[in-house]
Amino acid sequence: MAYGEIDQLAINTIRTLAVDATAKANSGHPGAPMGMAPVSHVLFNKFMKFNPKNPKWINRDRFVLSNGHGCMLQYALLHLFGYAVSMDDIKAFRQIDSITPGHPESHDTPGIEVTTGPLGQGFSNAVGLAIAQAHTAAVFNKPNYNLVDNYTYTFFGDGCAMEGVASEAASTAGHLKLGNLIAIYDDNHISIDGDTACAFTEDVTKRFEAYGWHTVWVKDGDNDLDAIEKAIKECQAVKDKPSMIRLTTTIGFGSKLQGTGGVHGNPLKADDIKQVKAKFGFDPEQSFVVPKEVYDLYGKKASEGAALEAEWNKLFEKYGSEHKDLHADLARRLAGKLPEGWEKKLPTYKPTDAAIASRKLSETVLESIYDTIPELLSGSADLTGSNNTRWKSAVDFQPPELGIGEWSGRYLRYGVREHGMAAIMNGISAYGTLIPAGGTFLNFVSYAAGAVRLSSLAHQRVIYIATHDSIGLGEDGPTHQPIETLAHFRALPNMMVWRPADGNETSAAYYMALTSKGTPSIIALTRQNLPQLEGSTIENGIKGGYVALENKNAQVTIVSTGSEVSIALEAVKTLKDSHNIEARVVSMPCMEVFDAQSKDYRLSVIPDGIPTLSVEVMSTLGWEKYSHEQFGLNRFGASGPYKEVYAKFEFTPEGIAKRAVATVNFYKDVKPLRSPVNRAFTNLI
Amino acid sequence: MAYGEIDQLAINTIRTLAVDATAKANSGHPGAPMGMAPVSHVLFNKFMKFNPKNPKWINRDRFVLSNGHGCMLQYALLHLFGYAVSMDDIKAFRQIDSITPGHPESHDTPGIEVTTGPLGQGFSNAVGLAIAQAHTAAVFNKPNYNLVDNYTYTFFGDGCAMEGVASEAASTAGHLKLGNLIAIYDDNHISIDGDTACAFTEDVTKRFEAYGWHTVWVKDGDNDLDAIEKAIKECQAVKDKPSMIRLTTTIGFGSKLQGTGGVHGNPLKADDIKQVKAKFGFDPEQSFVVPKEVYDLYGKKASEGAALEAEWNKLFEKYGSEHKDLHADLARRLAGKLPEGWEKKLPTYKPTDAAIASRKLSETVLESIYDTIPELLSGSADLTGSNNTRWKSAVDFQPPELGIGEWSGRYLRYGVREHGMAAIMNGISAYGTLIPAGGTFLNFVSYAAGAVRLSSLAHQRVIYIATHDSIGLGEDGPTHQPIETLAHFRALPNMMVWRPADGNETSAAYYMALTSKGTPSIIALTRQNLPQLEGSTIENGIKGGYVALENKNAQVTIVSTGSEVSIALEAVKTLKDSHNIEARVVSMPCMEVFDAQSKDYRLSVIPDGIPTLSVEVMSTLGWEKYSHEQFGLNRFGASGPYKEVYAKFEFTPEGIAKRAVATVNFYKDVKPLRSPVNRAFTNLI
Repeated sequence: MAYGEIDQLAINTIRTLAVDATAKANSGHPGAPMGMAPVSHVLFNKFMKFNPKNPKWINRDRFVLSNGHGCMLQYALLHLFGYAVSMDDIKAFRQIDSITPGHPESHDTPGIEVTTGPLGQGFSNAVGLAIAQAHTAAVFNKPNYNLVDNYTYTFFGDGCAMEGVASEAASTAGHLKLGNLIAIYDDNHISIDGDTACAFTEDVTKRFEAYGWHTVWVKDGDNDLDAIEKAIKECQAVKDKPSMIRLTTTIGFGSKLQGTGGVHGNPLKADDIKQVKAKFGFDPEQSFVVPKEVYDLYGKKASEGAALEAEWNKLFEKYGSEHKDLHADLARRLAGKLPEGWEKKLPTYKPTDAAIASRKLSETVLESIYDTIPELLSGSADLTGSNNTRWKSAVDFQPPELGIGEWSGRYLRYGVREHGMAAIMNGISAYGTLIPAGGTFLNFVSYAAGAVRLSSLAHQRVIYIATHDSIGLGEDGPTHQPIETLAHFRALPNMMVWRPADGNETSAAYYMALTSKGTPSIIALTRQNLPQLEGSTIENGIKGGYVALENKNAQVTIVSTGSEVSIALEAVKTLKDSHNIEARVVSMPCMEVFDAQSKDYRLSVIPDGIPTLSVEVMSTLGWEKYSHEQFGLNRFGASGPYKEVYAKFEFTPEGIAKRAVATVNFYKDVKPLRSPVNRAFTNLI
Repeated sequence: MAYGEIDQLAINTIRTLAVDATAKANSGHPGAPMGMAPVSHVLFNKFMKFNPKNPKWINRDRFVLSNGHGCMLQYALLHLFGYAVSMDDIKAFRQIDSITPGHPESHDTPGIEVTTGPLGQGFSNAVGLAIAQAHTAAVFNKPNYNLVDNYTYTFFGDGCAMEGVASEAASTAGHLKLGNLIAIYDDNHISIDGDTACAFTEDVTKRFEAYGWHTVWVKDGDNDLDAIEKAIKECQAVKDKPSMIRLTTTIGFGSKLQGTGGVHGNPLKADDIKQVKAKFGFDPEQSFVVPKEVYDLYGKKASEGAALEAEWNKLFEKYGSEHKDLHADLARRLAGKLPEGWEKKLPTYKPTDAAIASRKLSETVLESIYDTIPELLSGSADLTGSNNTRWKSAVDFQPPELGIGEWSGRYLRYGVREHGMAAIMNGISAYGTLIPAGGTFLNFVSYAAGAVRLSSLAHQRVIYIATHDSIGLGEDGPTHQPIETLAHFRALPNMMVWRPADGNETSAAYYMALTSKGTPSIIALTRQNLPQLEGSTIENGIKGGYVALENKNAQVTIVSTGSEVSIALEAVKTLKDSHNIEARVVSMPCMEVFDAQSKDYRLSVIPDGIPTLSVEVMSTLGWEKYSHEQFGLNRFGASGPYKEVYAKFEFTPEGIAKRAVATVNFYKDVKPLRSPVNRAFTNLI
């Protein structure tokens, strides 16, 4: 304890940097950094364990700014502690191609753990980081080798507290008794609409207690550094519950507009900046000033962090002599490598094998690889038996005292919390030792859209196991039958959307999902059985699209995905027998991966000269990119036995053949008839 | 009170109907209907006010089954009380084109208030229904004319309780002190993964208390009808808080598998069905049996309901003599008509008018029409100043005792709760007297995707005011810049996605949004200023797409939306001056509305013979439907001043011109060059 002038100086340096950077950018949020500088100082300087020279050290404490709009707070801290964030970077706040964008992005900025800003996400990521820590510790820690014992800290504001995704994650964290998680709630009573009294009058502390959290209230977060320190210490000591510190602060502390919405999302005015600096003992005429004492103070902390890591490295080396296999396993994971030869475990199928629902095929993949890939952590949003996400011998990830699982368990019961699951998986992935996979119905991946988007933007290797992928789910009806979902996620950059047609393609989807380190995947899987296809191999599947049935005399190419590929193959016979038309079939389990193939390859799959018809039982939006004509479902589905639903909408060999005939006739006169793959120019990506 | 044999008989009739219907369909969820039959009997027979012969009577009590998978409960009740749901309909449960689909759909089934099944939605809709009731009562009730005094009741299960959307709505309802809302929580400890102990161990009652709800616990929901009645009475008496009854029940009551997950989502086995019927005193060999006493009992209740409505109709007529204008207003709303001539209030613009951000243009529309359309209820998810959703004289919808608004207020502060807002708006719309409009950033409409989908499926006239619609928002950066969002919602059936280019198009968007009674709208609006365009009129805008700049000698059509239309118009000059290429420009503010125009019209806009280039600063997915080549952004954006972000990605006159040149050259050799509007066949819609 015993805080003095140097501490106030450090705090006010953070504040004035935030004031200067937002003023220079003429954009941004000074209020939260000014209000939360005190707790940041205490947390980072007194408690947190980190080495700015190696922001990826596995046993560092994790810090997540869930109220990411306050990111100048985080950029200031990173700069002052000596991360690779320079003063020029601070001055380039919110400028093109800087590493200090308007909200923190983990992919671009050293020391940023997760990408935040969309409210509620960071808080939920923190729950994932804490889960990953608890699991990794249970697997790797041994007597005398406390290799992994870091805390996860998160700051969140009223906005995050209102978001449902954070509620889901908080309830999950309470159930899981995550004692390694400390969340600090910036109780400043201000959101964009002004005083939270206009919309948010619940008792947040009581709510967190209802979730099973330990709670503390620090009433003067602006000034009472001792109370802040005491609260964090108290929370660290609570090992069987996550902790929430309600920290009452004044937003924009020091500004003439402090405590009002005026300081939330707008830079301070020139005269206000001057009076703030004068009040804090800074020269009102100077900007971006860091007193040497502050660099020194924080530099000392950084050196201590470097020493901690050096010690840890020695410990880890020694661990290697006593626990050779575990050492090798952790070292491999940290190097971002999968186990040698794991892919040989992927199941393969022959056309004579039985017809199986692809959700079951996915289960077989998990059964085949779970033992070889120990970093795979599966789970489901309360649809375990429907998503087929659990291998038979799986142990649940649970606090051992509940008697229903272990910290080392690799199956997570997320509850009916799709958005929370996705955001938690982003956190688990960001920790660095695990690959999370989580199941729900494809239609309800949409509930998680906010977090799925961040999987993509933040380059997290997260696998969404999305079963019941179409009207083929049958009786549950239109409320559960996806129509727009694949188009939605195909339009999302850096996302692989897979819709495998059979067993080999399902294995291909997992191969790509697991080996694509910086890209998440959605694997859309059927409820209904699918035959094993001629021409389907893992090697073909991982090209994203391939010729499932070649025919040199073809008059039309039918391109399809998932459950419709086998119907398209049947339609070829109908076309020949009833219409004397020759057709070829392309299976395209993943457009994004197909797009990454060479143009020559793509043109060999969807060639010039003949028209292409796409067939998929959902929105046709986007299929124009690969086909001249599209057969799909641009309306909601129907409740009934699935074969009848397919028949109602004409997704039958006859229904496809009819449209193929129309396609062939329509394009007869066009010369040259180019493949849709042929384009006048390429978009920036 | 004094419940007896007839009550048990009614309860068991509901149970056996659910057992028989799920068995016949070989699909569905018998567990919840069997567990909740007692509370349903008490609620419907003792408390609820409704007339089965007119399920649209405005002052009926609303009932929402948020755990919609248990819909056989609701279908059984509707049938037994004499709604237009026949025994044949019950027998067609979960069959194609029946009015008894796998989850309840309000558009198809008389007596179903809202479409539920996706968990958490119904609960949140109920909050919206209660808001609409409170507002409508405040506007229309007068001394001696308690025209609108209905309650809203909702059943919800553990799944709904876990969903973030319901948490958001519950927090909102608590803040709003909705004494007219009574939610009954089916505390049966079972979800699909089995015992809720595996994922959901929070104290739900305490959480609701934290939100500001009144709570009661009925410990034996299976048998204690008196306690159920007492609890509902108690909650009715609490006028300043919403109420939650924790009703502990046994899922699948009566089944051999009662109290287990086995009875949640699977029909009972044949022997179990027999023992259930025997236990309940029914003939084990007969199915779909309704004892005459039960029809009689419920028929009596239905007659009382019809009498209540008849009384109400008299009261309403009398009201007309004392409160002529209010009577006319309410009658008009109930008839689903907008005020005569309202559209004349829509602002129009000349090309010489100032450049204005379309979010401001939207604000001007609201300012211009709010007075004429009293049923318009605006709001925002805590972005009021950014979304420009509030007219200057607006009064907040708030409990009067808070001192910051009135029940009759027409501006709702939803808090940072996008998903809750959307689901609440669906409920407000479903009430029948209001048109809700709610704002957030376009990127965060995705948080609400689950509810937005139901706006479409349930044909709710909900208006999403979605500002900051592209990389044009600038500094907030990629976390806030939509890329996939428009493609997502364009792929959603029965949704109008508007992206107006200027003032007249903004007025057109509102015209269509307000007059399309069964279709929701997303209106995407800019942060940055847009010039008023030559050629833009409301009449053109409401066609969804039109020629903004004609040129009979054009070699290329450039089709664009929103903020890019004016850049495309500038590109025409660049093309002429630098490349000697003639171009024409199409503005397409709404694809869905354009699709509804005649083919002749569409071909006049996007003609045969010359290639078309689309220009929009987000995912190109779907633009192939209207253009030969697409210029868009199939990657995440960048944080920086918006003009620099546009320049970085070449969304400039030069950038567009370059791609138009490539397009013209690429298609020179193709004969005939058909418009993308020309298609070989039409998909079912």
